[in-house]
Amino acid sequence: MFESAEVGHAIDKKAFRKEEVTLRARLLDAQRRLRDQGRFPVLLLISGVDGAGKSETLAQLYEWMDARFLSTLAFTSPTDEERERPFMWRYWRALPPRGRTGAFAGSWYSTPIAHRMAGESSRVELDRRLDEINRFEAMLVNEGALLLKFWLHLTRSGQRQRLRKLEADPRTAWRVTKTSWVRTRTYDALQNVAGHVLRLTNTSWAPWSIVDGTDDNYRHLRVGRELLASLEKRLGEKSVKKRVFAPPVAPVADDRNVLSALNLDRTLAGKKYELELARWQGRLAELARHRAFARRSLVLVFEGMDAAGKGGAIRRLTAALDPRQFQVVPVAAPTDEESAHPYLWRFWRQLPRWRHVTIFDRSWYGRVLVERIEGFCAEADWLRAYAEINDFEHELVTAGTIVLKFWLQIDRQEQLRRFKHREKVAHKRFKITPEDWRNRDKWRDYQKAAVDMIDRTSTGRAPWVIVPANDKNFARVMIAQRVVKHLERALRV
Amino acid sequence: MFESAEVGHAIDKKAFRKEEVTLRARLLDAQRRLRDQGRFPVLLLISGVDGAGKSETLAQLYEWMDARFLSTLAFTSPTDEERERPFMWRYWRALPPRGRTGAFAGSWYSTPIAHRMAGESSRVELDRRLDEINRFEAMLVNEGALLLKFWLHLTRSGQRQRLRKLEADPRTAWRVTKTSWVRTRTYDALQNVAGHVLRLTNTSWAPWSIVDGTDDNYRHLRVGRELLASLEKRLGEKSVKKRVFAPPVAPVADDRNVLSALNLDRTLAGKKYELELARWQGRLAELARHRAFARRSLVLVFEGMDAAGKGGAIRRLTAALDPRQFQVVPVAAPTDEESAHPYLWRFWRQLPRWRHVTIFDRSWYGRVLVERIEGFCAEADWLRAYAEINDFEHELVTAGTIVLKFWLQIDRQEQLRRFKHREKVAHKRFKITPEDWRNRDKWRDYQKAAVDMIDRTSTGRAPWVIVPANDKNFARVMIAQRVVKHLERALRV
Repeated sequence: MFESAEVGHAIDKKAFRKEEVTLRARLLDAQRRLRDQGRFPVLLLISGVDGAGKSETLAQLYEWMDARFLSTLAFTSPTDEERERPFMWRYWRALPPRGRTGAFAGSWYSTPIAHRMAGESSRVELDRRLDEINRFEAMLVNEGALLLKFWLHLTRSGQRQRLRKLEADPRTAWRVTKTSWVRTRTYDALQNVAGHVLRLTNTSWAPWSIVDGTDDNYRHLRVGRELLASLEKRLGEKSVKKRVFAPPVAPVADDRNVLSALNLDRTLAGKKYELELARWQGRLAELARHRAFARRSLVLVFEGMDAAGKGGAIRRLTAALDPRQFQVVPVAAPTDEESAHPYLWRFWRQLPRWRHVTIFDRSWYGRVLVERIEGFCAEADWLRAYAEINDFEHELVTAGTIVLKFWLQIDRQEQLRRFKHREKVAHKRFKITPEDWRNRDKWRDYQKAAVDMIDRTSTGRAPWVIVPANDKNFARVMIAQRVVKHLERALRV
Repeated sequence: MFESAEVGHAIDKKAFRKEEVTLRARLLDAQRRLRDQGRFPVLLLISGVDGAGKSETLAQLYEWMDARFLSTLAFTSPTDEERERPFMWRYWRALPPRGRTGAFAGSWYSTPIAHRMAGESSRVELDRRLDEINRFEAMLVNEGALLLKFWLHLTRSGQRQRLRKLEADPRTAWRVTKTSWVRTRTYDALQNVAGHVLRLTNTSWAPWSIVDGTDDNYRHLRVGRELLASLEKRLGEKSVKKRVFAPPVAPVADDRNVLSALNLDRTLAGKKYELELARWQGRLAELARHRAFARRSLVLVFEGMDAAGKGGAIRRLTAALDPRQFQVVPVAAPTDEESAHPYLWRFWRQLPRWRHVTIFDRSWYGRVLVERIEGFCAEADWLRAYAEINDFEHELVTAGTIVLKFWLQIDRQEQLRRFKHREKVAHKRFKITPEDWRNRDKWRDYQKAAVDMIDRTSTGRAPWVIVPANDKNFARVMIAQRVVKHLERALRV
């Protein structure tokens, strides 16, 4: 793995100065075009062994580039806001928007490597995390990011030499601590773990570049050249090619599916409704205050055709919760900051802290519903979204977040009835727009997309609940009950 | 202060139900118009004594309104990310954007009142904080926010009665803790402190509404009605009136001012420059790693005419800093999320954590420079900005942030020379745009605005440094030196 980085490289000062002039001018120019185009972000991972010159090369990039559009994203121990969210939250939060460059000093690789080195995780656990990282990076790349990963390497003796050199210079002596020397003793262990990590994450979409860290000039130029070459290549491409890797969705043989097979006639009479609803609301109120929920959080997703009764059902849940504890997030058009990031970014930023509940009124599933049907994204985009969404929810669940998703199903006649009712009632009139009528015309497309979605994203730990919603009473009680049951199971109470 | 809230109010269930129907419909309609207009945010402060029904009334608002556009902003003990920023940071962070309603459960009043009650702050300190709050609220209102402050009151016996009633109901018993009862013992003390706080913050732009909390129905309707009335009134107003309270800026008697009086001929030769720069950079590198900086942070502001050399000067500073420690923030057009908040919001969100440095390449002073000159905001807006900016920086400095501001001064001939040079050099060509030439035509306006700005916002603890910048070497060394000197004084090292 590291052989090529051990053959010995050095570039003398004169050659360095000569190349630097052009390199700098071209990097600045590329950076400007990156910003003007605003098409993709650049993510730069600079990892490697202690003393291999990560900070120096990063500082060199600042010398060459425009610091206003370059950010260093550093991660030490997580803050308490980060600790209460899934592992990847802090990285999502730091992702640079399109047009900017983010240099990760410390990245999603740091913790898995450190944990494995300290014996705090098994090889199997490490490999599982690496698999998740590969899928995460694939998502970033598919979303357009230019992702460059550098591993700065030193031989064992090279490392000791570099540390001594740093110590000798008063300007850099502070960077060498006792820990640096202690860590040289684990050189072999790190080489083994890092070698394994690099092999498994050396994917075609985000390959590692292993750089000999011994000589400053060589290292600076290697990283600078590679960054420049990748940037210029990418800037020159007319548009990102979207290739469909997955086979097209299977044709439908008949009209029978999980939605059409649903019995929508189930109802609940007024008296029974009041009693049942109060019962589940009471239980929900208890669970939300339960000790077992103190280090957990809850994410609820509501999807369904227009006028399916999402808002009313949500209101019956929030009535049981402390207003300080929940947030209802309506999902409509993204803001421009949101559009400048991968599509899941705007949902990551809304994730609840411990003891909190976030209810999404429409959600990331818009990708495989409205965006698919209206052609707001390419076929390749929504096809890959199923797996990305599963990964996202898996990440949530692994971190202790409880996830439950509701599809509220009504039939076309019922929708028509509700549309007409809304047009009649003054304070509901605003709820009905020309777009609702247009969506109604695409009823079958939406139903088909919903079936695909449920088939592909209903998992044991983040299941879809299909709710017969022709009768609002029945739907509301069923939803409250399912939330309670799912919470009870997840909290083991 | 509380007399009117003690005369006894109650509304029976029937009357409540009757009024509720209309109130709800109108609130929903007002909320929708608020969103459609997107002109202003609504800030709802619900404060008061324990047991006065803050949560119940908030929950009632959720019953009446659309939860998707209503957020509860709750604050308990600050997170570590909040602790490392000024006191008001967490509230700025939570401010709802235009078109939305944010209900503050716990607000900027909570801590001052609690500290005073606990004897942790003196009356003088409390009053200073209240003065700051008044100025902050004035800024919010001037920026367009509809700010409603409710204080829910109970008599001493009424409080005990309410707590017993809550305890008796199994659904609310959990809300009464031992602390609730302990706090009843300090009823008089709270009345005194709260009375004082309410009197001093009962301003014409953000008056308090004191509500008898005894009867649920009465309290709900009082808050609901007031919210509705204020909302409808404000939604009906064609546009926010901008009145100029301050007298117009004094006419200039001659051309002599802090900028024109500057000697721009000072230079620094190459050899001396290298030595001096290295000296201050070295010292800066030490200070940034100094123990005394561990719980401090640094904010640097760079302003000046186009081509004054801001970027180059900044680069000489960052070269001395660890890339993980600083962030250069270029200030151009705001994003739409930023535009939906008060103009200072986008700078608050960039404030550094402890041990970190944020360098603003242009800044909040755009308000009194480009926005003033180009008419991007009303005269009343930029006139009040001086005081708001002073308040903002005062808040920073009080929290331990070190603030220094540089105005880089060049003359017109030098600017012309640099423009022409930029047009010649390939990798600098992008730096010169038609806008730069247009700004150049307004040279005198900018100079005048800069003089006003310096006169009105240079304070002892957040001073302006006027830098003769015709010679880049001289400017860079002077800036590095001033940063070092200012840091040394602030850190007492």
